[in-house]
Amino acid sequence: MPRLMSFADLHALCNDLPAGNAKAAAAVLRRDAQLTKPPGSLGRLEDVVAWLAHWQGKNPPSLGRVEILIFAGNHGVSAQGVSAFPAEVTAQMVANFAAGGAAINQLARAAGANLRVIPLALEQPTADFTQAPAMQEDEFLSAVATGFDAVNAETDLLCFGEMGIGNTTAASALAAGLFGGGGLFWAGRGSGLDDEGLLRKRQIVDAAIARHADVLDDPLRAAAALGGRELAAILGAALAARLQKIPVLLDGFVCTAAVAPLSKLRADALNHAWAGHLSAEMAHRALLDELALNPLLDLKLRLGEASGATLAVLLVRAALACHTGMATFGEAGVAGKSA
Amino acid sequence: MPRLMSFADLHALCNDLPAGNAKAAAAVLRRDAQLTKPPGSLGRLEDVVAWLAHWQGKNPPSLGRVEILIFAGNHGVSAQGVSAFPAEVTAQMVANFAAGGAAINQLARAAGANLRVIPLALEQPTADFTQAPAMQEDEFLSAVATGFDAVNAETDLLCFGEMGIGNTTAASALAAGLFGGGGLFWAGRGSGLDDEGLLRKRQIVDAAIARHADVLDDPLRAAAALGGRELAAILGAALAARLQKIPVLLDGFVCTAAVAPLSKLRADALNHAWAGHLSAEMAHRALLDELALNPLLDLKLRLGEASGATLAVLLVRAALACHTGMATFGEAGVAGKSA
Repeated sequence: MPRLMSFADLHALCNDLPAGNAKAAAAVLRRDAQLTKPPGSLGRLEDVVAWLAHWQGKNPPSLGRVEILIFAGNHGVSAQGVSAFPAEVTAQMVANFAAGGAAINQLARAAGANLRVIPLALEQPTADFTQAPAMQEDEFLSAVATGFDAVNAETDLLCFGEMGIGNTTAASALAAGLFGGGGLFWAGRGSGLDDEGLLRKRQIVDAAIARHADVLDDPLRAAAALGGRELAAILGAALAARLQKIPVLLDGFVCTAAVAPLSKLRADALNHAWAGHLSAEMAHRALLDELALNPLLDLKLRLGEASGATLAVLLVRAALACHTGMATFGEAGVAGKSA
Repeated sequence: MPRLMSFADLHALCNDLPAGNAKAAAAVLRRDAQLTKPPGSLGRLEDVVAWLAHWQGKNPPSLGRVEILIFAGNHGVSAQGVSAFPAEVTAQMVANFAAGGAAINQLARAAGANLRVIPLALEQPTADFTQAPAMQEDEFLSAVATGFDAVNAETDLLCFGEMGIGNTTAASALAAGLFGGGGLFWAGRGSGLDDEGLLRKRQIVDAAIARHADVLDDPLRAAAALGGRELAAILGAALAARLQKIPVLLDGFVCTAAVAPLSKLRADALNHAWAGHLSAEMAHRALLDELALNPLLDLKLRLGEASGATLAVLLVRAALACHTGMATFGEAGVAGKSA
């Protein structure tokens, strides 16, 4: 990526975004109208194909190379007991991803997607953001650059995911910082927090946004102060995807919070992204609403790891198979809709 | 199937249903608790695997043979202009299925499912049910038997679908007959009816339930009077699946209406069935609520052809892949949830 020396450099990059290709999307709609089905009857599957074409700039779009990027990070705030799991699980799950034993390994295979896992300085958790910014400017920009550089230009569709014990607390704090509302509104049970832990998590979110009130009007400084390395990397990867016009499927609450600063900077910044699913994490719906994203799936998942995004790939592949494989009314000798 | 001479024979069959295997479902839950993920974090995917095991009677369940059965029929009422498409499209689409040009052909391939299409006397539409019962007792029982006999005992998972110009009118009339509420509540736009057509369709539903008021307290007689051959066949196939403990994925509004009489006869009759999706047809949600079914997908489809059920197969396969392929906490050396 272009060398980022400061928040200002990243701001500049975030504000110079390309548009998609409306002609390619229009070509999808023209073909759709000829296929042997009532117009519009494949619902959101039709929208998905038009969206792919819009960003890939071609009809039909292709799904030859679908890639999943999972970023992993550790969080200073996890020492305060905001997760049902101990912090060492982040690294243990990264090893599990490498060994093929996690849910995402099975889902990636089912979806015909390539999986890459990128740990970010797991041995060095971010600072506890109730005490200091989670990351200094250089740490944040370095994580953004790691994500940015992880995106391969040859990718047809990109899924993001994350792993990081404590990272729903960071995501809640970042969402609260960007959109207002406190811990009561934004903090949920994450991987399975009990009532006492949830109360503590809410208080920590409130403490964090009070502590960093002076940077909240700058979405990137807010992401540095309240986020985490894996969130910053997802932001960088989403930005890289947009600059290279690669369509993106987002995963759950943490992943959505990670890209939210882009949307705050520019309302159309996530037009190349689709929400793979609505997770069971309490505030995910509200966060998607803030970003005007409409999820494809609602399966009460709360796992992360790109699991929801990767399940959505199954639907995207099916949608494209219909678009490319179906006969037209003319080819099949089927009568069209009455005038 | 057992020879059916009368409604009474079918009543008897519908009331003697086997239960599933709770031990197999419990074995799924025990393994789920050991897999490397927060308990419950795969949400409905976990429920799906337990349901498969419950009806297949084994853990892990298998998906070696997934079959889609599409039943097609024609409807006397379609002469009244209740569809956006002419009646000859039913046979034309059956030919399109055979040629591989329809949406369901592409979706079946994506889902690794075998597709069979079973036309029911297409050259002989049912009677216009505003004038007479759609089917006489023997016609109805014959269609039920066709569906029943189409189910192969070796099937691991069965998807139902339908094709029949005018059949959302039959489905609306049957739902209204079974659950009360008139055409205004139950009739929607089907494959794309305009405002004038929708008004006519609502009036036709109201006329039909008034005409057959005397049989509405018997769900099977109501299905004969207000349904259609393809709906009767789906009812028969769903009954056969239950007797053979084969799990079933239902498709959209017509398919759900087709099995509704079973649920009216016995509240637990559809425990072996899952709703593949919520369709865009207006009253599908209300109908699923009547049957206590909770759909897996909501993609605004309104195509029929088992399209929503077959898309759900993708999720069911992914769910089973997670269940069988994931490592346990012990195998992966991952710390479990804190006490």
